[in-house]
Amino acid sequence: MTAVKSPLSEAAQKTTGEALQGALVDLIDLALYAKQAHWNLVGPRFKVVHEHLDEIVDLARQAQDDVAERAIAIGVNPDGRSRTVADRTEIQQLEAGSLADDKVVAAVTGTLFEIIKRFRERVAATDEPDPITQDLLISITADLEKQHWMFQAQS
Amino acid sequence: MTAVKSPLSEAAQKTTGEALQGALVDLIDLALYAKQAHWNLVGPRFKVVHEHLDEIVDLARQAQDDVAERAIAIGVNPDGRSRTVADRTEIQQLEAGSLADDKVVAAVTGTLFEIIKRFRERVAATDEPDPITQDLLISITADLEKQHWMFQAQS
Amino acid sequence: MTAVKSPLSEAAQKTTGEALQGALVDLIDLALYAKQAHWNLVGPRFKVVHEHLDEIVDLARQAQDDVAERAIAIGVNPDGRSRTVADRTEIQQLEAGSLADDKVVAAVTGTLFEIIKRFRERVAATDEPDPITQDLLISITADLEKQHWMFQAQS
Amino acid sequence: MTAVKSPLSEAAQKTTGEALQGALVDLIDLALYAKQAHWNLVGPRFKVVHEHLDEIVDLARQAQDDVAERAIAIGVNPDGRSRTVADRTEIQQLEAGSLADDKVVAAVTGTLFEIIKRFRERVAATDEPDPITQDLLISITADLEKQHWMFQAQS
Amino acid sequence: MTAVKSPLSEAAQKTTGEALQGALVDLIDLALYAKQAHWNLVGPRFKVVHEHLDEIVDLARQAQDDVAERAIAIGVNPDGRSRTVADRTEIQQLEAGSLADDKVVAAVTGTLFEIIKRFRERVAATDEPDPITQDLLISITADLEKQHWMFQAQS
Amino acid sequence: MTAVKSPLSEAAQKTTGEALQGALVDLIDLALYAKQAHWNLVGPRFKVVHEHLDEIVDLARQAQDDVAERAIAIGVNPDGRSRTVADRTEIQQLEAGSLADDKVVAAVTGTLFEIIKRFRERVAATDEPDPITQDLLISITADLEKQHWMFQAQS
Amino acid sequence: MTAVKSPLSEAAQKTTGEALQGALVDLIDLALYAKQAHWNLVGPRFKVVHEHLDEIVDLARQAQDDVAERAIAIGVNPDGRSRTVADRTEIQQLEAGSLADDKVVAAVTGTLFEIIKRFRERVAATDEPDPITQDLLISITADLEKQHWMFQAQS
Amino acid sequence: MTAVKSPLSEAAQKTTGEALQGALVDLIDLALYAKQAHWNLVGPRFKVVHEHLDEIVDLARQAQDDVAERAIAIGVNPDGRSRTVADRTEIQQLEAGSLADDKVVAAVTGTLFEIIKRFRERVAATDEPDPITQDLLISITADLEKQHWMFQAQS
Amino acid sequence: MTAVKSPLSEAAQKTTGEALQGALVDLIDLALYAKQAHWNLVGPRFKVVHEHLDEIVDLARQAQDDVAERAIAIGVNPDGRSRTVADRTEIQQLEAGSLADDKVVAAVTGTLFEIIKRFRERVAATDEPDPITQDLLISITADLEKQHWMFQAQS
Amino acid sequence: MTAVKSPLSEAAQKTTGEALQGALVDLIDLALYAKQAHWNLVGPRFKVVHEHLDEIVDLARQAQDDVAERAIAIGVNPDGRSRTVADRTEIQQLEAGSLADDKVVAAVTGTLFEIIKRFRERVAATDEPDPITQDLLISITADLEKQHWMFQAQS
Amino acid sequence: MTAVKSPLSEAAQKTTGEALQGALVDLIDLALYAKQAHWNLVGPRFKVVHEHLDEIVDLARQAQDDVAERAIAIGVNPDGRSRTVADRTEIQQLEAGSLADDKVVAAVTGTLFEIIKRFRERVAATDEPDPITQDLLISITADLEKQHWMFQAQS
Amino acid sequence: MTAVKSPLSEAAQKTTGEALQGALVDLIDLALYAKQAHWNLVGPRFKVVHEHLDEIVDLARQAQDDVAERAIAIGVNPDGRSRTVADRTEIQQLEAGSLADDKVVAAVTGTLFEIIKRFRERVAATDEPDPITQDLLISITADLEKQHWMFQAQS
Repeated sequence: MTAVKSPLSEAAQKTTGEALQGALVDLIDLALYAKQAHWNLVGPRFKVVHEHLDEIVDLARQAQDDVAERAIAIGVNPDGRSRTVADRTEIQQLEAGSLADDKVVAAVTGTLFEIIKRFRERVAATDEPDPITQDLLISITADLEKQHWMFQAQS
Repeated sequence: MTAVKSPLSEAAQKTTGEALQGALVDLIDLALYAKQAHWNLVGPRFKVVHEHLDEIVDLARQAQDDVAERAIAIGVNPDGRSRTVADRTEIQQLEAGSLADDKVVAAVTGTLFEIIKRFRERVAATDEPDPITQDLLISITADLEKQHWMFQAQS
Repeated sequence: MTAVKSPLSEAAQKTTGEALQGALVDLIDLALYAKQAHWNLVGPRFKVVHEHLDEIVDLARQAQDDVAERAIAIGVNPDGRSRTVADRTEIQQLEAGSLADDKVVAAVTGTLFEIIKRFRERVAATDEPDPITQDLLISITADLEKQHWMFQAQS
Repeated sequence: MTAVKSPLSEAAQKTTGEALQGALVDLIDLALYAKQAHWNLVGPRFKVVHEHLDEIVDLARQAQDDVAERAIAIGVNPDGRSRTVADRTEIQQLEAGSLADDKVVAAVTGTLFEIIKRFRERVAATDEPDPITQDLLISITADLEKQHWMFQAQS
Repeated sequence: MTAVKSPLSEAAQKTTGEALQGALVDLIDLALYAKQAHWNLVGPRFKVVHEHLDEIVDLARQAQDDVAERAIAIGVNPDGRSRTVADRTEIQQLEAGSLADDKVVAAVTGTLFEIIKRFRERVAATDEPDPITQDLLISITADLEKQHWMFQAQS
Repeated sequence: MTAVKSPLSEAAQKTTGEALQGALVDLIDLALYAKQAHWNLVGPRFKVVHEHLDEIVDLARQAQDDVAERAIAIGVNPDGRSRTVADRTEIQQLEAGSLADDKVVAAVTGTLFEIIKRFRERVAATDEPDPITQDLLISITADLEKQHWMFQAQS
Repeated sequence: MTAVKSPLSEAAQKTTGEALQGALVDLIDLALYAKQAHWNLVGPRFKVVHEHLDEIVDLARQAQDDVAERAIAIGVNPDGRSRTVADRTEIQQLEAGSLADDKVVAAVTGTLFEIIKRFRERVAATDEPDPITQDLLISITADLEKQHWMFQAQS
Repeated sequence: MTAVKSPLSEAAQKTTGEALQGALVDLIDLALYAKQAHWNLVGPRFKVVHEHLDEIVDLARQAQDDVAERAIAIGVNPDGRSRTVADRTEIQQLEAGSLADDKVVAAVTGTLFEIIKRFRERVAATDEPDPITQDLLISITADLEKQHWMFQAQS
Repeated sequence: MTAVKSPLSEAAQKTTGEALQGALVDLIDLALYAKQAHWNLVGPRFKVVHEHLDEIVDLARQAQDDVAERAIAIGVNPDGRSRTVADRTEIQQLEAGSLADDKVVAAVTGTLFEIIKRFRERVAATDEPDPITQDLLISITADLEKQHWMFQAQS
Repeated sequence: MTAVKSPLSEAAQKTTGEALQGALVDLIDLALYAKQAHWNLVGPRFKVVHEHLDEIVDLARQAQDDVAERAIAIGVNPDGRSRTVADRTEIQQLEAGSLADDKVVAAVTGTLFEIIKRFRERVAATDEPDPITQDLLISITADLEKQHWMFQAQS
Repeated sequence: MTAVKSPLSEAAQKTTGEALQGALVDLIDLALYAKQAHWNLVGPRFKVVHEHLDEIVDLARQAQDDVAERAIAIGVNPDGRSRTVADRTEIQQLEAGSLADDKVVAAVTGTLFEIIKRFRERVAATDEPDPITQDLLISITADLEKQHWMFQAQS
Repeated sequence: MTAVKSPLSEAAQKTTGEALQGALVDLIDLALYAKQAHWNLVGPRFKVVHEHLDEIVDLARQAQDDVAERAIAIGVNPDGRSRTVADRTEIQQLEAGSLADDKVVAAVTGTLFEIIKRFRERVAATDEPDPITQDLLISITADLEKQHWMFQAQS
């Protein structure tokens, strides 16, 4: 089975591939995390937060596709299997059962902030080896930071 | 935190809730599984199978939302966190790395067949306790069986 | 004036017709009830609840059309006139004047729960005489239970 | 519970509020009336009149929302509950059971004419106290008169 | 050539397959029948009935696709060839040449009633062996009965 | 029952009517033929050919409506009943049961070529008696020849 | 003011220009004629015929634009002024005042037949001098003949 | 043939009817006038003015329909036949043949100004007898004055 | 540079022009005001109020275009430059920095009430000189009063 | 590699193929020509002509696809490679650098006229050997002549 | 009131915040400037330039929202109040009253060029402290430079 | 003829202009190349590759417009004439005649890889002189690399 021929040098490919694989795990788990909160939410702000969480899901799903297809485009196989995600995720997991709206707002705010820090590191790391990948990571970071502001503003 | 008041008796709620939670794990992992194949696919049928796999993703994502919201509507908290999915999934996992198109077609066909068997058991189990939930499970099974036929036909 | 020729036996037609006529009164009054709350609502959650109530109105209007047309399709004339609705409705009526948002959320939750109980009885009653009608009632009950969850979650 | 602060004087508010409440009862019952005919219609012109009646329903539902929201915007609580509508409606009610198409066309024509007369009185009554409300009533009257012509033309 | 692996037992597959094949012939010939009337119609109600017949065509074409794909999904090859349809159809055929609108309305009403009877038998026959197929047949029957009412109402 | 007054002379009407009736039988059977293959297809190219066949169905259904309405517009009653189609079709029928994708591609290519030959004769035959009909037949032939190329190219 | 340079010889331009100017007068007056009937119609078939007449208006307005722009494209100035239309129209004018639906159907049928005869002459006249114009006239004639059939069928 | 029963007194109906009939003639001829210029235009601003004229056509056609249907709604038969329009129009007619863009802009500006003066008289005339009609005339005048400004601004 | 020729007398033009210029300043500053709050908002109701404020922005932007184009249509140059708006606005300005949601709701309610008072004066002032302009101002006032109710209801 | 089986005789195929290949070169270069002008345009009419040129591009691109696919459908391989186009084009090429709007309008007018002459020859040449191809060429010529008029009218 | 937690260091936040606040003032005033010209424009190119100016308005409004929301996302409160804009804008203001089209084209070209220079400085200033913000400023600059070209090209 | 005033220094403009002109030739010829393959393709994967090639055409056409308009926006005239493209293209040309699908897939993969190398050089070259242009080139490179992966994956 022929691997995809990369437009990058081996070193650049390695650095970039690691940044993308890390981003992929973040984004897949962010989508699962936001769905879990979307379903188990309770509290007076239920309707608004329930719908707002689906904006996070949409953002994370679109971004996870872009990130994984970017990885394969530079010749690196992305790994988005459930076991991989569960083992490697750095996201602070939600409790099982019902989740109060104010706690969810706070948790999502914190989680987004942590993910953003990791994305900013990936933006820095890819600047030299692959500006094409960096541009994608910048664009996703911008979306995450916008959502971070909106969740924080309602804390 | 008040739990959602269920229109079902406790026993009916328990049986139905287990069927829905099982379905949720199947559907979340099916979406991750299909995306993994979508990204790592190679072979002469790449374009067709790549796009066909996204039909599975769409089906599984829509169905997982319906199933989880049905669970909470009968007073049972769904659990769709990455750890839960990785630990409880019964789906035979894909290898890491590139995946040949003919193997993917065979694997998806087999995976769908196994999921369908579990869904048919859930349809039978919910017939008595909750016909509303059963109707949802019937509808998802119909979609899964249609996709099973289409993957098998191209094996 | 020729009555519509029914595909059902007389007994099946009678049982099914009563279930549908009962559902029709519930659904017409639910739409009027939700509109009354939509217009007279006050409180900090006004905008969200105001818009959420219109989802109830849409659901109830679509379902009342389906139910009435199902009745006539089995040869039973539906009666949805204002006098009939006012006299036969079992819905606990709202007060005149302004309505606080938290009271409306609680009232809608309770009202939906009562309607759902009656719909589940109609689902049971039509299982034998007319599975076609039962399928329609199951589908409406699923929608009502989803809304019940969402109103209860924000109580 | 704070009432909505009105841009009108008390006297203007009272006159305008009465015009709007009267219009609301007319429009809610017109929608129920047209739906009753829509469902129970028979005769060679069934399909055309059946669909035409839904144009009346749409017009009446949109107008009833505009009228009720106009009432609350000037600080008057609208009352659109089923009991209120049944008690105060001046519309000549339809018979129960199947309704022949030619009789329905004649009945709708007559009913619209009576409603139009009441709307023209409301247009006159609000000219002085509130031209904003008057403009809304003029617009609804124009729609009612267009439908009156179209029903009369096919009598 | 590998047959599609069925989720059903052999007996269940046989019963269900016969119900679906019977439905397929009914639906293909119903579409041809309605088109024949659509083209050759004359009479004062031409425009309305001409367009109404295309609703039957759309219903029958969509349903025939669903039914045939359901058959293959359970491992049964559907047969919708012109010779098969002509030989096995139980629909009372239309005369050649121009067709008066009132006669068409009566003929379609009667034809739909006969088809509905056969569909209700298929609904009963599949209840036990395959609830997934039964659910599809229920849904088609509901649509056929709605059209039956509308044609009968204008007879 | 008054026949439609034709803008053509009797001779022109006869020639043109025969061309259109022949085209109608070809197009109705082509749609049934393509659907039969669409449902019973197997093989590695299943998904592509399955969807491609529906382009043939759409083309044939739209063209059969245009051809039949053109016939009646010149005063000739089209005959598209199942018995007529089965008896008069010149299309080489498909086998019952599963159909391999490469055989279907070859069969459709051949069938389209035969139909095109008959359409080119109809184009020639109508040039003199009715250029309006000829223009329609030219347009359908163009579409058939485009599909013929695309099926042949993948043989 | 420079005239548009024609791709036609002077003789071809003259013949073609006359055909197009004649068509323009027919089509402008047909639109006015159909609107007059659309507004003044009465009778039991009012709604259907009222809407059907707007199909004629749409057809005539679209065709009149195509015809006039075709004239100028070959260097001939079209004349569609009200005085020109009133003076040159060959359409049998409608009476002032209300118009019964059956009379309108008969009148439109007859008027279309007369226009079609003139269009067929224009098709013949332009065959030699300008096949591009002829193709446009054929297309409009096809639409007029389809409408002629549909009006005649309901006479 | 029964006339439409008017909601107006005889005197009010007469005044209002005359205003509407005058408006109808203005609007029909304005559409023909703008189309004539649209087709015969030449000059450096051709493309812009050619398309701008179609905005006038659209405005005039929509308004002529509203005005004529308003007339019949108050029981007055509108007369929009070509002869009536040609005889009664007060619009200064365009020359035959090609029309320079700057002359067209000036002519349309002047024509709109004259029509606006007549519409303002009709607005004044209907204030007392029929505010519903007046509201329609106000709305059309607003549109005409907006177009007048835009044509004048480019003179 | 030729001024636009006004359909109004000089005195009517002056009164109407002042009303429109005042409205323009109100509407431009209302849009800036609502955007400032939209961006700097904090508090538990952030998401709802953030989005609701954009409805105000849309309303104000659409209305400011209508008002300015109405001014120029009657020959009065509108002035919507930043300096003019800042100098002439009567709107109570927002503080710099973050703005709590409850304070924003109260401030918008009060601001809308003040603007409405000025619009009602403009409606009265234009009644005599220009009913066309008055109709536009009535329509904008209706929209402002609807928003005033909705903001007040959530105070 | 099997060539596409042609429905035409060898002689007819040759004549038709040459007409289509010539048309293809004209249309590809016309699109490049119009884009070159679209990008390098200057002058007071820039915005209008810039956008108008994209209508030419759209027309030429759609037509080049239709022409090339028609060629292959009759068994002739189209050649649209850059070298072929550059070598065979008969279009008078544009200068490099900025292009004044009036010169572009004149150049496009002239270029379209030359292309139209070649298309009219192709229409004549294909009349006998392939009326299907002729019909396509007629349709493209009609579009080119409409654009020729519009460019000439603004010269 | 908690400020939004910034992903940037204090120094980076300060530099970036100043760039964004400067951009905000430019973009708000650009929208007001373009609207002022849109309304007061006169001259032969009125229609084209009038519509072109609204492209500037749309660009500036969308960009001002993006810029302000980016500021708050990094923890800096944007200030877009009318007084702030009027006091800080560096845009050369338009005269009051009517504005000739050629002068407007020249003025917009010059204004865009000045704004672009300031944006390019902001792009340079944010390169180091915040590449996410820089990417947004690059994207807006690209749009402004495209419009600058298009306005300059028609000077 | 005034050249567009560039926001860049002369040196930056020169470097950036050369990068854009090179990109333009690549993208125009890529579109022609992909269309040539789209038309002349044969083989079992015809339908899939035929449609996939049109994605390349769309990408290349959109990118060529963006690149050329970027060039002119910085004051450099783009040259996209057929002669220029044929003379300067570095793309390995396709053979005339029919093209087997597997060879086309390999050829497109290789061609895209070569183009990507040249784009990556242009991205590097413009980093310093014009980050706005660089951002556009990055975005196009991302799209090309995604297509490169998809073509390579099916080789």
